[in-house]
Amino acid sequence: MDLEKIIETITEEVYKKLVAEGGGLSTATAIKDVYRPGAGNADRLRAAIDHTLLKADASAEEITRLCKEAADNRFASVCINPSYVPLASELLYGTGVKVCTVIGFPLGATSTKTKVHETKEAIENGASEVDMVINIGAVKSGDYDLVRNDIESVVFAAKGRALVKVIIETCLLTDDEKVRVCTIAKMAGADFVKTSTGFSTGGATIDDVRLMRRVVGPDMGVKAAGGIRDYETAVAMMEAGADRLGTSSGVAIVNNNKSLSQKGY
Amino acid sequence: MDLEKIIETITEEVYKKLVAEGGGLSTATAIKDVYRPGAGNADRLRAAIDHTLLKADASAEEITRLCKEAADNRFASVCINPSYVPLASELLYGTGVKVCTVIGFPLGATSTKTKVHETKEAIENGASEVDMVINIGAVKSGDYDLVRNDIESVVFAAKGRALVKVIIETCLLTDDEKVRVCTIAKMAGADFVKTSTGFSTGGATIDDVRLMRRVVGPDMGVKAAGGIRDYETAVAMMEAGADRLGTSSGVAIVNNNKSLSQKGY
Repeated sequence: MDLEKIIETITEEVYKKLVAEGGGLSTATAIKDVYRPGAGNADRLRAAIDHTLLKADASAEEITRLCKEAADNRFASVCINPSYVPLASELLYGTGVKVCTVIGFPLGATSTKTKVHETKEAIENGASEVDMVINIGAVKSGDYDLVRNDIESVVFAAKGRALVKVIIETCLLTDDEKVRVCTIAKMAGADFVKTSTGFSTGGATIDDVRLMRRVVGPDMGVKAAGGIRDYETAVAMMEAGADRLGTSSGVAIVNNNKSLSQKGY
Repeated sequence: MDLEKIIETITEEVYKKLVAEGGGLSTATAIKDVYRPGAGNADRLRAAIDHTLLKADASAEEITRLCKEAADNRFASVCINPSYVPLASELLYGTGVKVCTVIGFPLGATSTKTKVHETKEAIENGASEVDMVINIGAVKSGDYDLVRNDIESVVFAAKGRALVKVIIETCLLTDDEKVRVCTIAKMAGADFVKTSTGFSTGGATIDDVRLMRRVVGPDMGVKAAGGIRDYETAVAMMEAGADRLGTSSGVAIVNNNKSLSQKGY
C-alpha cells in the first residue's frame, strides 16, 4: 500500500469522523483526555507553556531573562533559536525546564540533510525538544513523499534523545492539506503537531487546534503557537485540544490566571 | 591589534569620511564606478537582477516559471530556498543564469556549523552564490567575534566555488552596527554585503545602500533587496551604489525599462 493510498484512506476516514461528530466542541474524548477544566489546571497551564523568544535580534541578555522567567514559573521549556541553545542549556541545567529549539525555521525550505544536521547539533548542545517546520513548498507541489521523508529523517535523528514537534504552518495550508500532513507526522513517529511558526500570515486558531487533535487522536501532542497573548486564549486553546502552548506571553498568562482563579482555572 | 580595536578604528575612520563628504549623493567615486547613467544600462540592470522567490509555500511549478523568466530575461541569477537548488540547477544548466540560495535564512540565528553545512550542501547541489544572514542576536549582544567567525566560516566553506553575500538586515541595526558589520564582512573576505532578507520589518533604503557602498568601497559588491518593485526604485538603488538587486519583480522592472528608454536607461 503506497503512501498516497494510505493518506487517501486515512483522510477519508478522518473526514467521515469529522462529519459524523458534527464539528462540535464539547464531546470529543481526545479533548477531554487532554484538558479537564477544574482544580489543578493552573499548574497544568504552567507546565504546558513553551516560553518563546525567536526574533532574529534577541540578545543574550534577553535569552537569559527568558530562562530565568521559565525557571521561576516552572514552564515546560524555553523555545529559542539554535545559536542560543548552548547558553540556555547552561542556564537551565538542573531547573527541570527543558530547552526547545527550532529546525528549518521559519520557512521549512531548507534541505532534509540540513534539518537532520541541525537537529543532531541542537541535541548535542543540550536541546531536548525540536520544533521542525515541514517543507511547505513540497506540500504545495503534491510531493508528500518528500514531506514524509523530511519528517521521518528528523524523527530518526532525534529518536530517544529529543521530542519532535512538527510545525505544519496552518495559515498556508488548506484543510485537506492539514489533515494529510498531520496524518503523515503521526505515521512518521513525531511526538507533536504544531500549528504555526508565528512568522507567517497567521497563528493558531481554535478550529485548527480542534481539527489537528481529531486527526492525531489522544496519543500524540498538539501544540498551539502564534498569537496566544492572554489567559483566555491560552485556556481556549487547551480546551480545543492543545496540550502545549508556544507563546512569548507566558508570564502574563499565568499572572492573569491567578486573578481569574474563581472561574475554576 | 584585536578585532574590537580594528573595528573601532575603521568605524571612526568611516564616520569621519562620511561627515567630511557631507552625506551627499553625487560625488562618491565608488558609486560612479558602479553605475553610470546612460546607454547600455538596460543590459546592466538586467544583469544585476537576482530573480527571487523565497516564500515558504512556493511550489515546484512556480520555481520552474521563475527559472524560465530568468533565462528569458538574462538575469544574474534566481534566488531560491535551499530545497529547490537541485531543481533550479537542472533547469538552468547551460543558460548562463546562476543559482543563488540563502543560508541561515531569514533569522540568521542558526549555528555557524549549520550555516557551513548548508553552504557546502547548496554548492554540491549546484548553487554558485550564497546569501547568508549574519547572527543579528550576536550583534545585539556585542559579540562581534561570533559575527566575524560566522561570516568567515561560510566564506571559507564557499571559497573559490561560490560568491558569498552577507545579509546584514539593515532594518534591525543602528547605523553604527551597520558600519561595523559591513567592515567585518569585508575583512572576512565576503563578496557582497546585502541590505535585507525581505522577511523582517523593512527592506532596502537609498540611505542604507549609500552607507554600505561607502563603507565597503568600490571593490566589494552591494546588493539591495526588499521592497524593490518598480523600475524607478531599481535605478535609484543602482545610483545609490548597488550593483545587484534582489527582487521578485524583475520582469516588471525590465519591462518598464523599455517604455522609459528615452530617459537614457
